[in-house]
Amino acid sequence: MKQIESRDNALIRHILRLLRDRRYRGKQDEMVCEGPKMLGEALDSGILVKQVLMESGREADETLLARAQAQGAQLCAVSKSLLAELSGVETPQGLVFTCARPISAPEQLAGAQRLMLLDGLQDPGNLGTILRTADAFAADGVILCEGCVDPASPKVVRATMGAVFRIPLVSCPMEQAAELVRSLGLPLYATALAEDSVPLSTVPLSRSAVIIGNEGRGVSERALALCDRKIIIPMRGRAESLNASVAASIVLYEMTRGDGGVQ
Amino acid sequence: MKQIESRDNALIRHILRLLRDRRYRGKQDEMVCEGPKMLGEALDSGILVKQVLMESGREADETLLARAQAQGAQLCAVSKSLLAELSGVETPQGLVFTCARPISAPEQLAGAQRLMLLDGLQDPGNLGTILRTADAFAADGVILCEGCVDPASPKVVRATMGAVFRIPLVSCPMEQAAELVRSLGLPLYATALAEDSVPLSTVPLSRSAVIIGNEGRGVSERALALCDRKIIIPMRGRAESLNASVAASIVLYEMTRGDGGVQ
Repeated sequence: MKQIESRDNALIRHILRLLRDRRYRGKQDEMVCEGPKMLGEALDSGILVKQVLMESGREADETLLARAQAQGAQLCAVSKSLLAELSGVETPQGLVFTCARPISAPEQLAGAQRLMLLDGLQDPGNLGTILRTADAFAADGVILCEGCVDPASPKVVRATMGAVFRIPLVSCPMEQAAELVRSLGLPLYATALAEDSVPLSTVPLSRSAVIIGNEGRGVSERALALCDRKIIIPMRGRAESLNASVAASIVLYEMTRGDGGVQ
Repeated sequence: MKQIESRDNALIRHILRLLRDRRYRGKQDEMVCEGPKMLGEALDSGILVKQVLMESGREADETLLARAQAQGAQLCAVSKSLLAELSGVETPQGLVFTCARPISAPEQLAGAQRLMLLDGLQDPGNLGTILRTADAFAADGVILCEGCVDPASPKVVRATMGAVFRIPLVSCPMEQAAELVRSLGLPLYATALAEDSVPLSTVPLSRSAVIIGNEGRGVSERALALCDRKIIIPMRGRAESLNASVAASIVLYEMTRGDGGVQ
């Protein structure tokens, strides 16, 4: 196995740049993930795993590494301190890998019945949590529209707990997303704290697409103009709004819970 | 108004210690918050605001400051760089203040119908989000049991968006919390991915207390032994579990949504 000792090694520099540079990730169509569990999820999903870097001398899951190698991944050993530099967590798990970004073409959503559209979602933890929840409730896909945080950013990937490899993920402008939703014959709703919003349990969500907005400003006027109806999650307390990932999760839960509150 | 120039000033040292030292926050029964909106929420809640530090020369909301002063708070001006040091965010809002920790006595939960118990919840963002959601869905209180992150930690307070001042918050051991729930005549449920768990929509949650577990290990055996029934949020996808704050939020949503899925 190849052994890398220096921070100046081309592969190490490539990974450090992938970690911090969104445009570079896009250009290379590649991202960095961490830990054996995540590697297992990546291999299960069939995504292209490129490089696997392991901590020298640390016990590793040989079966997992053999699977990665069989799929064409290159294995390298690096020092503990070098691996810690590539890790985004306090307790590195001894394994970092690169793989293709799991972005699908819009055509992959053919036949979709339950979609979530994100309009300018900014927080990596929120996006990661939404992808994890969308996977848990078997949504058919998530569409990232303008101004969203990069789904291939390390914080997002980590927060998905592997769901980033399972939930179909499309990136396209809001107008194109709305057109796609229409072509699928689905109604398009947007969550909004507006006077003419109807409670989400009064609309049939089991076949629908729902827009979740930016953490600060909510769904943009431009996106609101494209939707069929505004929906609201009824609140009783004094808080003015919900965290964006909580709102998205409740919508995703309602999508599978049944139509109009009747199971 | 008092002007503070030095990092060695006793008040500045006090605040820096409050920011990083949980035990000190407990001993002083005091915490640090940030921003005019949060100060407004604190004043609205009637909590004791002690010190308000503003950035020298920055425009401030005079009405808000007058309210703080009327409640006995001391106002100080500090330099922009010093204030930035006290701030936990990239774009400081020009105002930091200290106030009493909003922890209630268990007796304050008399008459409660919907409670959430947290068992070893560790992530500050998760706790903040749960408090915000509990407030939005008008839960009657949240009980923090053993091993939870400090609700007075800056990250938690920030994530609550002010809800930390509104939602009754109690800190006590799980056994005492379970006893309190019984004395209120409420059933005690725990979310668990167990064989004998029943879907949450099949139990009447509108009068109940529900335990949410630690992010990694879930609800502890000790807490499970105290509960009447284990409940599960039905998942359809391949994800094994939900983020703890998402699970909590769906439970809180179901608590107000109605009994057994019927509105």
